[in-house]
Amino acid sequence: MELELVTIGNELLLGFTLNTNAAELARALAEAGVRVARHTTVGDDPAAIEAAVRQGLQRSGFVITSGGLGPTRDDVTKRSVAEIFDARLELDRGYLKELERRFKGFGIGRMPESNRSQAEVPRGATVLRNPWGTAPGLWLEGPLGGVIMLPGVPRELRGLLEAEVVPRLQTRAGERSGRVTRSRVLRTTGRSESALADTLEGVADRIAPLTLAFLPSPEGVDLRLTAWQMGQQEAIAALAAGVDTILPSLGACYYGEGDIDLAALVIDLLARKGPRLAVAESCTGGMIGQRITAIPGASAVFVGGVVAYSNAVKASALGVPEALVEEHGAVSEAVARAMATGVAERLGAEASIAVTGVAGPEGGTPQKPVGSVWLAARLNGREKVRGRVFPGSRGDVRLRAAQAGLDLLRRLLVERNGPESGEQP
Amino acid sequence: MELELVTIGNELLLGFTLNTNAAELARALAEAGVRVARHTTVGDDPAAIEAAVRQGLQRSGFVITSGGLGPTRDDVTKRSVAEIFDARLELDRGYLKELERRFKGFGIGRMPESNRSQAEVPRGATVLRNPWGTAPGLWLEGPLGGVIMLPGVPRELRGLLEAEVVPRLQTRAGERSGRVTRSRVLRTTGRSESALADTLEGVADRIAPLTLAFLPSPEGVDLRLTAWQMGQQEAIAALAAGVDTILPSLGACYYGEGDIDLAALVIDLLARKGPRLAVAESCTGGMIGQRITAIPGASAVFVGGVVAYSNAVKASALGVPEALVEEHGAVSEAVARAMATGVAERLGAEASIAVTGVAGPEGGTPQKPVGSVWLAARLNGREKVRGRVFPGSRGDVRLRAAQAGLDLLRRLLVERNGPESGEQP
Repeated sequence: MELELVTIGNELLLGFTLNTNAAELARALAEAGVRVARHTTVGDDPAAIEAAVRQGLQRSGFVITSGGLGPTRDDVTKRSVAEIFDARLELDRGYLKELERRFKGFGIGRMPESNRSQAEVPRGATVLRNPWGTAPGLWLEGPLGGVIMLPGVPRELRGLLEAEVVPRLQTRAGERSGRVTRSRVLRTTGRSESALADTLEGVADRIAPLTLAFLPSPEGVDLRLTAWQMGQQEAIAALAAGVDTILPSLGACYYGEGDIDLAALVIDLLARKGPRLAVAESCTGGMIGQRITAIPGASAVFVGGVVAYSNAVKASALGVPEALVEEHGAVSEAVARAMATGVAERLGAEASIAVTGVAGPEGGTPQKPVGSVWLAARLNGREKVRGRVFPGSRGDVRLRAAQAGLDLLRRLLVERNGPESGEQP
Repeated sequence: MELELVTIGNELLLGFTLNTNAAELARALAEAGVRVARHTTVGDDPAAIEAAVRQGLQRSGFVITSGGLGPTRDDVTKRSVAEIFDARLELDRGYLKELERRFKGFGIGRMPESNRSQAEVPRGATVLRNPWGTAPGLWLEGPLGGVIMLPGVPRELRGLLEAEVVPRLQTRAGERSGRVTRSRVLRTTGRSESALADTLEGVADRIAPLTLAFLPSPEGVDLRLTAWQMGQQEAIAALAAGVDTILPSLGACYYGEGDIDLAALVIDLLARKGPRLAVAESCTGGMIGQRITAIPGASAVFVGGVVAYSNAVKASALGVPEALVEEHGAVSEAVARAMATGVAERLGAEASIAVTGVAGPEGGTPQKPVGSVWLAARLNGREKVRGRVFPGSRGDVRLRAAQAGLDLLRRLLVERNGPESGEQP
């Protein structure tokens, strides 16, 4: 199956907003075996929307739009598409009732008048429920082809895609061709892109026709294997063989697949093994705590943390002796160890992570340049400590430090209780 | 002047790469007074490229392409556009010599054969020098209109845009019209999109021909005023008048312009007024501390924080009496107040923010549904407390809670020492 995307919004056309929706749609559709043939962006302008959707229908017979459904945009997309299909807008009383109920639930009381128009749908359209927002998705088919209208708010678009659109398209596409494009992503951290490329030299030939892409970010390097336009079973088998070929070379820097999050993995390992976690953060300023508490259910293992930004707080809240800071400096192995021990004792946890570093742009010295970070992790009395100098901006250094802190505890959690493995320290 | 963008590449169409080039082009062109009427993305496919460029020329008479110029892509864009203009490819000996010289300079020695084709240009095209890469930009005009072909590598695209494309288009657009498109963005928080739309009803008429766009996110609603295709001075004056018209209706929910960050604003206000800041976070788990410490120089005012996720840590690290939690619950006005007082005292700060809430998806009750959050801020003994029920996912609730906590302290900082204003609590 093949279709076109039309993304709508002046802010996209003007370049004020990056078009993440187009990428999100394309990736989700490829997984469902649907090929995106063309992508068009137009402004919030009825004539431009109508022209783009009409041309897309003529070429491909199927169009997905995003944007132009909000109450302040006059529902410009809905009206333009209804025009193409010659379909009148009618009030969907069921949806209106649901909207009113939800506004009551928010404690806002009466629904603003401007939201009422969102319950008007083109005659014959299927309403796709949107619990993440107020504009429903709409699915309209007729002699000209099919149009799926989705809201432009990324969270709502993603929700509707997963819950409503992809499952229906998957069924439809599978029936027609049976060919899909599938990927698997192996996540690594602690090794650079060029080091990984050297490690995996020659592997591209061995896994052909799969392709291998390196996707570096401050969190590490993701490796994406892709099977292009294969039968579904064939793609699954080829990807499994490709992963088996690559994994042995990755060692402990591989931590999981897909969109797995390192913080979620650490929480999961802790929940299975029992110890509770506390964190002591200096240069990351709360980022590790924030990542951990982003995971639903973190409260089962995470008791809390201390953001010890000033040296006074390192002393008062974590019991780091002032003499230690004076002798070694706040960014040092000794202070990282003392922070990890202090936070575990003070907050009553068996596991802890501590980070202290120079995030920059100021504060670097020849001995401790910007990017210098000391990390410590403790687990039931065992300990790992690492010193690193991370490249990049203040933001990058902080992201890398938070990831490295979580990774240090992960390595403690997955190692047997013996000595450290031969992994690069 | 008006034109269309055609961005080319399978990785864009598949969503593996975010289309930053389209946004970059659109912004640079708007500043130069050029309006982007439509943006199309196609894959590395000669027929699709030819169709997209041809249609763009028919509609607008001018097209800028990016991508499909590299040696590994068979210069697919150059060949397709040459086809449209019926222009033969000819070797540009000057450019070939320069390329060979540069490859020597790289220390690579002989130029790979695949790069030789980059010196072939459509007859009649102007070669735009690209010192950032090997594929030159190409500018071709004929009876059908004009096409500018730019490489897809973002650094090269940006360089060519600034050095070659924008100055020429500016001259051309200026000669024709002297018109530019300019925007100003007003940031608000604490009021919903529909409430703002109701507040600003009728304002759109008063600020015409400026347009007003509502851009909602968990941080609040941004209002973008845009002056389309006006003379530069006229645009600046119209935007200033538009801002003056809107600002009085916004009241205290307006906090700044452009890409100002609320955490940076709070740090700045604290630095000017003197008090040091500490934060106590429960459901946000470190997010406020992380946002504050993302700002370079935060250490001048921020001493640190406590992530009091468990009730035991609320008691041990913040001195929140266990009886208070038992009586009112951890998510309550009383506990938020006690957290704000406790963290200021324990960490030695004159200003503090405290947040406690139910981020979900579990943990809601009929009395305290998911999204219920209590916020408190203190400043030199004065205090503000708010209870809210935020909509959205766990992530949304946390983002909204962190923003609302920062906003509460901002309101304390900007208010005179008198009683609270009439702003919605």
